Amino acid sequence: MEESPETTEGVVKESQDAWEQIDQIVAAGDPEAAHDFLKELPPGEDARVMAQLSDSEQQEFITLISDENAARLMESLPELQAGQLLSALPPEQAAPIFDEMHSDEQVDLLDQLPKSQSAAILEEMDPTAAENVRFLAQYDQLSAGGLMITELLAFEESESVDDVVSNLRQNAEKYGAYNVQYIYVINSELQLTGVLRLRDLLLAPPQRQISKMMITNPTSVLDSTGLQDLQHFFDAHPLFGLPVVDKNNKLVGVIRREDVEQAGEEQAGRTFLRFAGIMGGEELRSLPLKTRSARRLSWLSINIVLNVVAASVIAMYEDILASVIALAVFLPIVSDMSGCSGNQSIAVSTRELVLGVIRPRDWFYIFRKEFVLGMVNGIALGVLLGTVAYLWKGIPALGLVVGGALALNTLMAVCLGAVIPLILKGFKLDPALASGPILTTLTDMCGFFLVLSFAQALLPWLT
Amino acid sequence: MEESPETTEGVVKESQDAWEQIDQIVAAGDPEAAHDFLKELPPGEDARVMAQLSDSEQQEFITLISDENAARLMESLPELQAGQLLSALPPEQAAPIFDEMHSDEQVDLLDQLPKSQSAAILEEMDPTAAENVRFLAQYDQLSAGGLMITELLAFEESESVDDVVSNLRQNAEKYGAYNVQYIYVINSELQLTGVLRLRDLLLAPPQRQISKMMITNPTSVLDSTGLQDLQHFFDAHPLFGLPVVDKNNKLVGVIRREDVEQAGEEQAGRTFLRFAGIMGGEELRSLPLKTRSARRLSWLSINIVLNVVAASVIAMYEDILASVIALAVFLPIVSDMSGCSGNQSIAVSTRELVLGVIRPRDWFYIFRKEFVLGMVNGIALGVLLGTVAYLWKGIPALGLVVGGALALNTLMAVCLGAVIPLILKGFKLDPALASGPILTTLTDMCGFFLVLSFAQALLPWLT
Repeated sequence: MEESPETTEGVVKESQDAWEQIDQIVAAGDPEAAHDFLKELPPGEDARVMAQLSDSEQQEFITLISDENAARLMESLPELQAGQLLSALPPEQAAPIFDEMHSDEQVDLLDQLPKSQSAAILEEMDPTAAENVRFLAQYDQLSAGGLMITELLAFEESESVDDVVSNLRQNAEKYGAYNVQYIYVINSELQLTGVLRLRDLLLAPPQRQISKMMITNPTSVLDSTGLQDLQHFFDAHPLFGLPVVDKNNKLVGVIRREDVEQAGEEQAGRTFLRFAGIMGGEELRSLPLKTRSARRLSWLSINIVLNVVAASVIAMYEDILASVIALAVFLPIVSDMSGCSGNQSIAVSTRELVLGVIRPRDWFYIFRKEFVLGMVNGIALGVLLGTVAYLWKGIPALGLVVGGALALNTLMAVCLGAVIPLILKGFKLDPALASGPILTTLTDMCGFFLVLSFAQALLPWLT
Repeated sequence: MEESPETTEGVVKESQDAWEQIDQIVAAGDPEAAHDFLKELPPGEDARVMAQLSDSEQQEFITLISDENAARLMESLPELQAGQLLSALPPEQAAPIFDEMHSDEQVDLLDQLPKSQSAAILEEMDPTAAENVRFLAQYDQLSAGGLMITELLAFEESESVDDVVSNLRQNAEKYGAYNVQYIYVINSELQLTGVLRLRDLLLAPPQRQISKMMITNPTSVLDSTGLQDLQHFFDAHPLFGLPVVDKNNKLVGVIRREDVEQAGEEQAGRTFLRFAGIMGGEELRSLPLKTRSARRLSWLSINIVLNVVAASVIAMYEDILASVIALAVFLPIVSDMSGCSGNQSIAVSTRELVLGVIRPRDWFYIFRKEFVLGMVNGIALGVLLGTVAYLWKGIPALGLVVGGALALNTLMAVCLGAVIPLILKGFKLDPALASGPILTTLTDMCGFFLVLSFAQALLPWLT
């Protein structure tokens, strides 16, 4: 019996050995050892082991294994890593690996490569497969067309149960790779007219025409349907796959539950990274330094400009600061805490948008909910920081200035943080990437202004 | 043909009507209208529509629909929302709804309720189902045991193909809800000995004993296997489900791909929220204010203490600040920018941990990678901010102080941000929740110290 490793420690120990092994295998150039190595590697360890090899070692390893094994390996690596690895191979070596992949993976991985290289690979690929890729590439990656596979079983209405079963028997090996759950029935215009479940074939008399026993008016989705609608659909329906049709009801592919869920998982990961300022929503440390640095810097340099703009508010009050130098201690605190409170709201709104619990037009409902929470948390934090300020210098007015400013600014940050993602989403912008910088710029400016203008008003009691 | 909505606008328009409709239905207390309403509701809209109703209206709506429909509704709502709704129902009303749920959902949702209430519901539930829940509740929610379902088809080795097929026919309706893909074969000790695919039954002679045609030594997972190992396993194997066995190889359940992927998606969402400081990793605006405020405040109040500690560095240099008041403008910028750079590293490390590309013991590899990136980005940002400072006041030393401090502090933030999640993970702490506050406290202290001590050293050239 194949046993899954019981503890993380077990996996770590195995992969420790794995690194030494793969180094030796690449050095020896032993195809058989490479094959056995891949077979023995615990699932999920491949990404980590490959990341440890240099680009040229990875390339050598790929040449050692069969095209089919290479295709399986590419499919299980994170897309970015697989793309990087494939882009190091010459097109005539990459093409046969692509030929062995599932249709949806072919498109996704070619998309990771430079245009000129993907064109060269398509030239080298099996012509039918290449044409299929070009067909799939027209779809948005996160639509039913972009997520579907084209490996499916379709039979014409006029065929009988016996026709279907003998076809299944003859092509058992080929279809084994299809993970067939449903058989689709089409008319002479290739339009979807019905669906058959495998188990129904079990119980039907062989001579019956399939059009007589199929489920008519089967549920299908349009190729343009978006990921979020697909997720909701699969949440609500216990199906493994759905036929995908174009606007003429022609059957073009099958979308499987697993592809939708995997795409959803990847989206969630990308949202998380974009939220932290990683452009493009993906970074692996095995990427070239230039790419990584440039992606991070492009976000940071926008931020630094916004920061300078916000801090210019402080510059306008230099005389107040000079008279009450203690205020300089509290400016970063007010800025940071308002940022934290606002980010909590942003995160909840972004999450609720993803879950489909709210939509952009619900902004007023959200605003009302957050306003009350902002009042409660603002007062709590304001009292806390105000007390600290008062106790430190023994000046009641300092506590009032600092506490009052933080309270008001928290209220503002909480409300803005809740609404900004909705507004961005409403304008079809990416809430995860842009909400943070917009929020902190606004709350910093407002926070600095509140602290310093309150101080100006209470100046006689502060000095 | 059932069509999926083509555009978001379509869905929005429908749900606008939906709110008015559900209000009327609840007001009229019309069960038939409630049933039709649920059937017509676009998938994924239920969470949003229910969130708009008050607690008492939600409760009234649930009493209008059948227990089975209520169970389906609960299964499709976010867990937190379903838990909140169920906790408002008296146990004798909640129990029959639980009876209609799948076994894994029963456990997850009972877990959302207060202890006393879940005990009361278990008392009222069907005794067999309740016993099953108690059995499943012993497992960690994110292990194979916690994610598996117990609805499965198992037959003894001695039975024939004909026995199995006639059993399937007789129980077609009951098994329809099971989404059966595989049939498991057990011995008299209930140990898993083989597996049969439905399609194999198609092709086999009726009299054959199933032990003669089953796949022996089937792949299975231990009930204690964790989510991450399960994800890697399903990534590597194109299977719909796996039998789950206990340590005596007794068949205890089936874990389906969709459950593993859904759990992975939820985890990613929770990581995102914890990263932004939402304790427990879940918040919906429909939760009571007290709960939401308390969860957010508990994280914020730790942060405010850390902020005060960090800012106390500024307090030690009040005299320097008093002589060069312009520094006060740059302190929040250095603090915020280092926080941003560090958070990017944290996000990439957290993501790579989730993807399984790195493990805590790889910290030195990660550190090396980030050190170079930190140097590049640090110099870029330092030059940028230093130039701004110099141009503003015309004092070269001011540019040197501010730019040099930001450059060094960025390097530190990038390296710390990359390594902190690994260290926390190594100590089995939650990287998403704790990394941010630890990082910003350290980088703030260090940033303030660098700016102010550089200024102290260059004081003659600054004034």
